[in-house]
Amino acid sequence: MTDPVLARLQGDRAAIVDRLCAYVRHPSVSADPAFAAGMRAAQDFLIERLGALGFANVQRLEAGGHAAVYGEWLGAPGRPTYLVYGHYDVQPPDPLDKWRTPPFEPTFANERIYARGVSDDKGPSIIALETLGAFLAVEGRLPFNVKLFLEGEEETGSATLGDILAKHRSLLAADAVISADGARWRADLPTINIGSRGNTGFEFTVTTGVKDLHSGRYGGAVPNALHVVAELVASLRDGQGSIAVKGFYDGIPPLSEEERAMMAAIPFDEDGFYESLDTAAVGEPGYTTIERLWVRPTLEVNGMWGGYTGAGGKTVIPNEAHAKITTRLVPGQDPDRVQQAVMDHLQRHCPPGARIAFTGERGRSGAYLVPPDHPLLHAAEAALQDAGGVAPMRVRMGATLPMTDIVMRELGIDTVMFSFATSDEDYHAPNEFFRLSSLDQGLAAWVALVRRLASHGAEAYAPFKRGAPAAA
Amino acid sequence: MTDPVLARLQGDRAAIVDRLCAYVRHPSVSADPAFAAGMRAAQDFLIERLGALGFANVQRLEAGGHAAVYGEWLGAPGRPTYLVYGHYDVQPPDPLDKWRTPPFEPTFANERIYARGVSDDKGPSIIALETLGAFLAVEGRLPFNVKLFLEGEEETGSATLGDILAKHRSLLAADAVISADGARWRADLPTINIGSRGNTGFEFTVTTGVKDLHSGRYGGAVPNALHVVAELVASLRDGQGSIAVKGFYDGIPPLSEEERAMMAAIPFDEDGFYESLDTAAVGEPGYTTIERLWVRPTLEVNGMWGGYTGAGGKTVIPNEAHAKITTRLVPGQDPDRVQQAVMDHLQRHCPPGARIAFTGERGRSGAYLVPPDHPLLHAAEAALQDAGGVAPMRVRMGATLPMTDIVMRELGIDTVMFSFATSDEDYHAPNEFFRLSSLDQGLAAWVALVRRLASHGAEAYAPFKRGAPAAA
Repeated sequence: MTDPVLARLQGDRAAIVDRLCAYVRHPSVSADPAFAAGMRAAQDFLIERLGALGFANVQRLEAGGHAAVYGEWLGAPGRPTYLVYGHYDVQPPDPLDKWRTPPFEPTFANERIYARGVSDDKGPSIIALETLGAFLAVEGRLPFNVKLFLEGEEETGSATLGDILAKHRSLLAADAVISADGARWRADLPTINIGSRGNTGFEFTVTTGVKDLHSGRYGGAVPNALHVVAELVASLRDGQGSIAVKGFYDGIPPLSEEERAMMAAIPFDEDGFYESLDTAAVGEPGYTTIERLWVRPTLEVNGMWGGYTGAGGKTVIPNEAHAKITTRLVPGQDPDRVQQAVMDHLQRHCPPGARIAFTGERGRSGAYLVPPDHPLLHAAEAALQDAGGVAPMRVRMGATLPMTDIVMRELGIDTVMFSFATSDEDYHAPNEFFRLSSLDQGLAAWVALVRRLASHGAEAYAPFKRGAPAAA
Repeated sequence: MTDPVLARLQGDRAAIVDRLCAYVRHPSVSADPAFAAGMRAAQDFLIERLGALGFANVQRLEAGGHAAVYGEWLGAPGRPTYLVYGHYDVQPPDPLDKWRTPPFEPTFANERIYARGVSDDKGPSIIALETLGAFLAVEGRLPFNVKLFLEGEEETGSATLGDILAKHRSLLAADAVISADGARWRADLPTINIGSRGNTGFEFTVTTGVKDLHSGRYGGAVPNALHVVAELVASLRDGQGSIAVKGFYDGIPPLSEEERAMMAAIPFDEDGFYESLDTAAVGEPGYTTIERLWVRPTLEVNGMWGGYTGAGGKTVIPNEAHAKITTRLVPGQDPDRVQQAVMDHLQRHCPPGARIAFTGERGRSGAYLVPPDHPLLHAAEAALQDAGGVAPMRVRMGATLPMTDIVMRELGIDTVMFSFATSDEDYHAPNEFFRLSSLDQGLAAWVALVRRLASHGAEAYAPFKRGAPAAA
């Protein structure tokens, strides 16, 4: 017999899809101030929706950046409190000319919805909200307390998340976090993420003089900002796939034989992986592709520009050039030190006649690993098996959930990723999509998770909490 | 007593300035198809003006690219024929945000006119046209035959100039070219240019897979098109200031002691040069700054771009990146071979997982040197002394007049540069300007040149002409 809450969700499926479509139509791009109205509209959508689903104390929480949206249901005194996390901001839609359909107009094709943010993280968040709301509607209650927290700065490195948590530490106190963000690795293998990489980011500008110069009149005797940027970027890697920044790898413990064996045991079609991307394997020598993706740090230039980029030619020696850089970090690396090491490297390699300036520093998050015996992790694994019939494999992800590290630092609690996005859904690229089958899987798994957590007492979480205030 | 033609020009000065302003208001950017209407309008302006000045057979000459504008006065049979060259196309105005006044609205300040193209080459061209027209108006004739040729592709490498000359070889036959393009080196030193560098140009695109990828999900295991472009660009130079492309310097004869001594004798405030640019001396070891600027070849990236370049951050691994490259060549270098050597270098250094494609090849021109005893060069030197009171120093320029090389190849005749632009007038940069004093100097010098050439017979040019058809 179908669970009555799940039955209600299944009956309500068309309306849930409609609400998801309404949600993704709001262009909530946090990186670009031009989208301020879209950010506001997405907040308003959530505030209205949380109220309608039965959550109380709905409000914006902010600390100088984009506000988070909060709501709570605290009708289970003495029971554990879970902070349920998602984010409503999305990546910029660029490059626009690569989209086959308008990024903010959800389009159905192949049992998928195509739209910016539908996979990261609006679809997965909606699953969590609708499931929890369905329990309130059908049973009038949940077997635990819930604090919903929908962030607005996930795609820009969660710059003020720490401040928001610190400012509202007792409002947000909880026993653990269930994250509706942190996509599943693959569509064809039941898995659960137990760790993520950290990240840092900044932008730099090279200036080689007061103005652009004519390449005929001045060429041969003056520096060119584009050549300087190219040489600086080239200097960041050693030509073999390793990062050439002094101190970059400091603090990373060697991989254990056990970790390597776990990763080697995971079925992975490496040839198919590279064929589907139409590229070749590159990376740090001495590591497998999975190790490079999950447990080794990286440094990538995400954007680089300068000089004349229009049609035809312009014989100019540009005096200004720019690059945006981000890193991915693994356990043992300190984000502040890594960021500083990369900047120091660039400063040291900046040649005579050129100046370098750093701007746009973005949130610095450490890597994160869930304790292997955390009760919420066990409950999540059991729920996935209940709903899908197969025990999930423990995997890690190369991406970053800055909140995992920040929540541990500010609230002292662990996070388990329970998202139903899938990592092939192009969520930082054109034509982002979300599988409709993931919606069904997600609703079933969230219902199973609530059922599993009904038997967990708050005392099970005590050993894992670090110096955090008591839950409300 | 003032020369009567010069007196007329001086009396007409305000009207000449007005006509120059009308001319620069037409945005004749040849590099960008978006400016097609501006190109057409500049052609129409010239056609109307040439007719009004008394030139006959006025017409457009074209060979699949932007048309040149032609006009003639052939009322001196048996006398030499000079092809008077200028160009009506201008550089793109980018970066627009660096202009203090609108680029296509001439603005007067500090005894200068600010506008795109006012120095390169509309101001200098207008001086030539107005002077020749004044002779027709005052004296009813010129002491030689004149063919005016105003090109529309100078700023894009004169892609179809050779075809236009070949197609109209007998119409354009002449004894020598007087170029109103080819700026004076400095405002403070009377000089005449006797040589220019050649150039080549193209664009390349690096692709590292089928799409942009998420830097967390894929970072560490896939190539990044921006890193590939940066490494390719960095590989083009050796870190000491020399070009690292195999074969790049092939064919260049060593500098003679005499050449070096001539260049060393030229007064040049090197410290002031670098201070005014707010940068430092860089370049090929073993050469002085003047040698680097005039007689050594260069390679510059003029534009480079890829990935996310908007506000804030985007954690993307771009699969596509671009760069525009131009070279400057010196006597002895073959433009086709140099272009091929640079492309071969890039192809050879393109790493696994990446593909490179070449587009946008632009006109390839060799370097050019006027024969030191050419009669037109002597006449030009004498005219400059007549008008300015001081004998000019012979100098070379680092920039390119593709027409010098192309005219020699197609028509077999030499070119003497007799322009009144000055090389500090920011003509490939924002805030291009033209000194009003240069207008006065130019009108006086052109009048003096016409007077000097009155005594030259056609036979003086015969020894310098190479396999060209007889002048009309």
